Amino acid sequence: MNERKIKTIIEEIYQKGFDGMIIKDINNIGYISNYFPTAFAVCLLKEEPVIYTTIMDLEFAENSSDIEVKTFKSLKDLKEILNKENYKKIAVEKTLDIETYQKISGEYELIISDLLEKERMIKTSDEIAKIKKATDIAHKSFNEVKEDMKNKKFSELAISYKLGQILRDNGAEGESFDTIIASSSSTSLPHSTPSNNKIDYPILVDWGAKYHNYCSDTTRTIVYSEKEEEIFNIVLEAYNKTIKSIKPGIKSCNLDKIARDIITEYGYGENFIHTTGHSLGLDIHEEPRIAKNDKTIIEKNMVFTIEPGIYLKGEFGVRIEDTIHVSNRGKVIGNLNPVI
Amino acid sequence: MNERKIKTIIEEIYQKGFDGMIIKDINNIGYISNYFPTAFAVCLLKEEPVIYTTIMDLEFAENSSDIEVKTFKSLKDLKEILNKENYKKIAVEKTLDIETYQKISGEYELIISDLLEKERMIKTSDEIAKIKKATDIAHKSFNEVKEDMKNKKFSELAISYKLGQILRDNGAEGESFDTIIASSSSTSLPHSTPSNNKIDYPILVDWGAKYHNYCSDTTRTIVYSEKEEEIFNIVLEAYNKTIKSIKPGIKSCNLDKIARDIITEYGYGENFIHTTGHSLGLDIHEEPRIAKNDKTIIEKNMVFTIEPGIYLKGEFGVRIEDTIHVSNRGKVIGNLNPVI
Repeated sequence: MNERKIKTIIEEIYQKGFDGMIIKDINNIGYISNYFPTAFAVCLLKEEPVIYTTIMDLEFAENSSDIEVKTFKSLKDLKEILNKENYKKIAVEKTLDIETYQKISGEYELIISDLLEKERMIKTSDEIAKIKKATDIAHKSFNEVKEDMKNKKFSELAISYKLGQILRDNGAEGESFDTIIASSSSTSLPHSTPSNNKIDYPILVDWGAKYHNYCSDTTRTIVYSEKEEEIFNIVLEAYNKTIKSIKPGIKSCNLDKIARDIITEYGYGENFIHTTGHSLGLDIHEEPRIAKNDKTIIEKNMVFTIEPGIYLKGEFGVRIEDTIHVSNRGKVIGNLNPVI
Repeated sequence: MNERKIKTIIEEIYQKGFDGMIIKDINNIGYISNYFPTAFAVCLLKEEPVIYTTIMDLEFAENSSDIEVKTFKSLKDLKEILNKENYKKIAVEKTLDIETYQKISGEYELIISDLLEKERMIKTSDEIAKIKKATDIAHKSFNEVKEDMKNKKFSELAISYKLGQILRDNGAEGESFDTIIASSSSTSLPHSTPSNNKIDYPILVDWGAKYHNYCSDTTRTIVYSEKEEEIFNIVLEAYNKTIKSIKPGIKSCNLDKIARDIITEYGYGENFIHTTGHSLGLDIHEEPRIAKNDKTIIEKNMVFTIEPGIYLKGEFGVRIEDTIHVSNRGKVIGNLNPVI
């Protein structure tokens, strides 16, 4: 990442009484060092942060890392260093697997810290630029398959492959997650998998591009019948009002409540079966979540999705999703009309 | 999966003194139930195995799961059940994240068990058929881009996208991992990422297809110069002799030694910077590893890769990889000549 960011994180580690932090998550390592491991590696964050990688990934690590790179054979080597250097309290990620946790346990305490998740919540201008670029590529690519989608000749799978190809042609590294193209009654599954069925209305597409490791995330639903349109308009109202309420200082859970209350007023509260949104960046799901139980206070330069939905089992579902950048207010990233 | 398999696993859980097992890994849940969660879910393996999923994924879980599906809101609900039903010792996966581990800790002991990894080591005929089909698709698709690759007009990225498209056209769900197309000096990185550079010799392609959730994994290196060919022939010798030595009863580490000894004899031991292979199935990397420190005894119906390689930093690298099915001997899956 950048020196200032690393310095801030290391200061916080010490402030919280840790002697260092062990990082294993690939995107956390990439966030710190710009080296995204392709094999087993860890980063030891301390005064002088160090990457430990195996000989297999060494050349790649040396080429890409902004911080010092050393080789190790196994976690035993790392443990020896920690024991020798008299560590007392070490921060670890909450995603750390228990096998590694047990392997690195030693004469010191390992304590879960959300320091990195918290740091990653506030995006730098460089990160925001990458998310915007990813979104632009995603939206442009969507427009290039829109007509094919609507003409009912192609299967969900065929269009998802085509969209994937176009995303790459337009400069993405690939999808930021498996594209969802659902149609007809399969739209009632929020995470439907594209099938060989020919596309029919309503059509729900949830897709994203990855650009310089950063994700975009958008959903559009194209409706046809009167009932579909009725549901669509409720979701659109929830989407619009929630986005209009975004500003620094409001709580995550209150944004979720705004979307949920509108949908509930229309009698579809039970059919809004997921949270209202999530942050994204290097990962497609980051903190904060725009959810009932997330009390995070929204700050400037957070980036997160707003994606209300209504799902009528056996009938159809509607979701509208955009990614929002928080400045003085919430600004939708990209300019793809939510009504297609 | 199938009833017999679930029964065996549950019997083993009890034999090992556990009152049940909590499973969170997506592919482990899919292996047991045929439901591959798209959101937060766990499987509680006990006399009557149960899937716990959130309301968001419920319809999909009910449609795909072979075992009972219940909803829960959070791990608290699960914990209450465990406490109420008087569990004493519960098995968990080694990949379980420490946050979840701490959340479900209670009046009982949670102990890492490799029971599922061990069970998944021996493939059923249905699993082997899927791996074979995935491999056939991968090999057929490779042949369809081979000439484009060799004519030096296209970039590594362009060919990797094209291969991805053809894999899907040929019936794959997608890649089983990000395709590696390296060329020229970038072949010295075992896990090189395709670039915009035009392809030149040597060309190293490491790719796989996913078919009905099962992975294939193959590597081919196309060499040109005399030195490249010399190195290629050493790797080929290691590949051939290792595969010929595969039979039930031999140890994993001994297979690694056979490959490593040959490469070392030629003076390139230091340049063989990874293990000799790994099993695969629902995951691209499964147990056993064909590695120095893996003492697993090879059994019938294991499936794993053999992939010796030599990497000359700043010059080039060569790797040859095939997936092997163990019957009375080791049989290479697919029939793509290792010499292209």
